[in-house]
Amino acid sequence: MKQENGGVTFAEGFLAAGVEANIKYKDRKDMALVWSEFPAQVAGTFTTNVVKAAPVVYDQEIVQKGDPVRGVVLNSGIANACTGEEGRKSNRFMAEAVAKEMGVQPLEILTASTGVIGVPLVTPPIEKGAGLLKKCLDKGLEAGLAAAKAIMTTDTVPKEAAASLDVRGTTIKIGGMSKGSGMIHPNMATMLSVITTDADISHSDLQEVLKDAVKDSFNMISVDRDTSTNDTCLLLANGAAGISLGKKDPEWKEFVQALRYVTVALAKQMAADGEGANKLLEVTVDHMPRVEQARILAKSVITSNLVKTAVYGSDANWGRILCALGYAGVEFDPELVNLDLIGTDQRIRLVSKGMATDYSEEEATKVLSEPVVKVYCDMASGDESATAWGCDLTYEYVKINGDYRS
Amino acid sequence: MKQENGGVTFAEGFLAAGVEANIKYKDRKDMALVWSEFPAQVAGTFTTNVVKAAPVVYDQEIVQKGDPVRGVVLNSGIANACTGEEGRKSNRFMAEAVAKEMGVQPLEILTASTGVIGVPLVTPPIEKGAGLLKKCLDKGLEAGLAAAKAIMTTDTVPKEAAASLDVRGTTIKIGGMSKGSGMIHPNMATMLSVITTDADISHSDLQEVLKDAVKDSFNMISVDRDTSTNDTCLLLANGAAGISLGKKDPEWKEFVQALRYVTVALAKQMAADGEGANKLLEVTVDHMPRVEQARILAKSVITSNLVKTAVYGSDANWGRILCALGYAGVEFDPELVNLDLIGTDQRIRLVSKGMATDYSEEEATKVLSEPVVKVYCDMASGDESATAWGCDLTYEYVKINGDYRS
Repeated sequence: MKQENGGVTFAEGFLAAGVEANIKYKDRKDMALVWSEFPAQVAGTFTTNVVKAAPVVYDQEIVQKGDPVRGVVLNSGIANACTGEEGRKSNRFMAEAVAKEMGVQPLEILTASTGVIGVPLVTPPIEKGAGLLKKCLDKGLEAGLAAAKAIMTTDTVPKEAAASLDVRGTTIKIGGMSKGSGMIHPNMATMLSVITTDADISHSDLQEVLKDAVKDSFNMISVDRDTSTNDTCLLLANGAAGISLGKKDPEWKEFVQALRYVTVALAKQMAADGEGANKLLEVTVDHMPRVEQARILAKSVITSNLVKTAVYGSDANWGRILCALGYAGVEFDPELVNLDLIGTDQRIRLVSKGMATDYSEEEATKVLSEPVVKVYCDMASGDESATAWGCDLTYEYVKINGDYRS
Repeated sequence: MKQENGGVTFAEGFLAAGVEANIKYKDRKDMALVWSEFPAQVAGTFTTNVVKAAPVVYDQEIVQKGDPVRGVVLNSGIANACTGEEGRKSNRFMAEAVAKEMGVQPLEILTASTGVIGVPLVTPPIEKGAGLLKKCLDKGLEAGLAAAKAIMTTDTVPKEAAASLDVRGTTIKIGGMSKGSGMIHPNMATMLSVITTDADISHSDLQEVLKDAVKDSFNMISVDRDTSTNDTCLLLANGAAGISLGKKDPEWKEFVQALRYVTVALAKQMAADGEGANKLLEVTVDHMPRVEQARILAKSVITSNLVKTAVYGSDANWGRILCALGYAGVEFDPELVNLDLIGTDQRIRLVSKGMATDYSEEEATKVLSEPVVKVYCDMASGDESATAWGCDLTYEYVKINGDYRS
């Protein structure tokens, strides 16, 4: 498996566009299309929120049915959530407008929305946008980047990742984009992500591999524990590389690894770009009896407001880390726990068997001042581990969210 | 039942003191004693954190045994958590020092600590403090207030509440104090609370009534979802009023009501004094099939960082409220939900059957600018309701917690 540069257009047979439809924003891209030259199998994972936006319900039905699709249309600015029947209508309108432009059936077009809740999409900008999308649709990295930009809301940078692998002498490509920096939480956030591959993969294998990849990536990040109404991650496989791949093949393991690289890379970009964040916080919990326990513990640490503010203040307040492990709802012996802080040049043991070492506060503050703060928690009780990603909690977060709508 | 002024010394036969022992702080009270003139039954509820401070483990054993006690010694500044055997020793030392001064057995003295994690109590200030406590021990409201002040950490105000009721012509009194403004979360927080009553109540009835009262009060508040290592709520009943009371008595219901008033009053004071908070947020979830569901939903709303920042910004961002209800893990039909904002002079319906009404943003902002923000969620699916209390998330919270230890 090779890490690559690129995004949603990296895989063969995928085109993209990002345009200014003026749905809510002026002077910036707010509508995107990811298009496959060939019918593509599609897998999806969606928000677990009881309150689901219109596009989520719409996509879930299509993914459930398992018929091939041709594209995904996405918009930013308006989430089309809590909009009732009017919202469902305007969502169908978005799919229909794009389908009409592209000459396919509406149910071959998936939809995704992100932005403010409670406002339905207005149709004239959508209609205009659909026309622009067709015009701008293109191959190549630039078109992928335009799409990645068009789905941003409070994101400060577009998020892309790509990887390739060799299967029977042919290159298989995977590329993806995502957005999300607020309402980000395990079990997904106002995150939208579209990942594409040119391998030929069955619907059921695709769904399984996506679900597994999401568990260790998007579901292991958190900015603010708020799970949104719109979270959507779609994986399209169009077979353009001419290589059929399935879980019985020996190369499947490498494909899984490559997909995981793409999803983890996107997830880490999202956590690092958390609303108001200065630092990426990476917490690994090692040596637990079960991987699910390690996941819960790692997530508990990255979601603690007290840990997040300590990281912001570069304060090695390890008591808050131990405390966050303690209330996660998983049993362990606190007097076995070791905690390390891992910097670029040094690794500092803060806690040994549940108690403070005589570490240097000055050195610890130095490590905590790096842009990526890595915490290693050795629970000394098993062989399983998990990593979660979050960010610091800053004045800026409060500012952004105290005044998001206006 | 009558609401009264007073705190932990309001009930007959209870004395208190708060002194400067210089455990960590200089120039402020940091050690308190609540003392009963007679042996008292004691009930307790404690943190559910796996990581438990030394005083928590110590108190749990005493409460479990059910023998009468004489007092509670509390300190602020140092939590004596994650301190291993040394911490257990210094905790026992604190009980012993007070027991020696007061001429009772060490196991008749409960302990509680709050403050920074990972530092054990140093014994010389404790010894000095024990002597001072004996000297300052007094009846009356002033002594109770001194104790309430001595247990404060980042609290900005002392917290006290009291109530009385008439039982067979005799007045039964209940009074309490608590502290806590950070690490506050349902299933208890670095909150310490001592409540006293002069009724004569059996150990088992006392434990049951406290557990129930905590469910609807301390376990329904949150400042930052961080459940601490030290949370302790103790209820002492010394029988000084000469009235025996139990759950089979007709007056029990009124006692339960009075105790609930005291615990809810203390809980609300803690939420309002949340670290950096400007506003108290009160969320009532009504019309759910089961009370436990209503509790989960109400807590989900008050703990959402996005709701908390919207309250800070006086932004009627009802989508975040609906979203927080949606990810609580309780099933409901979003298209039945009504949301009201309740101000001093007006009640504004923001959402009707899951969708925005045409409410005035200006009026909504006015209501949201009041010091107490009340949200009413009508789920339209049953007869049960619950109320939770939280606070807004502000710059000041980030500031306090980005630099708490230094």
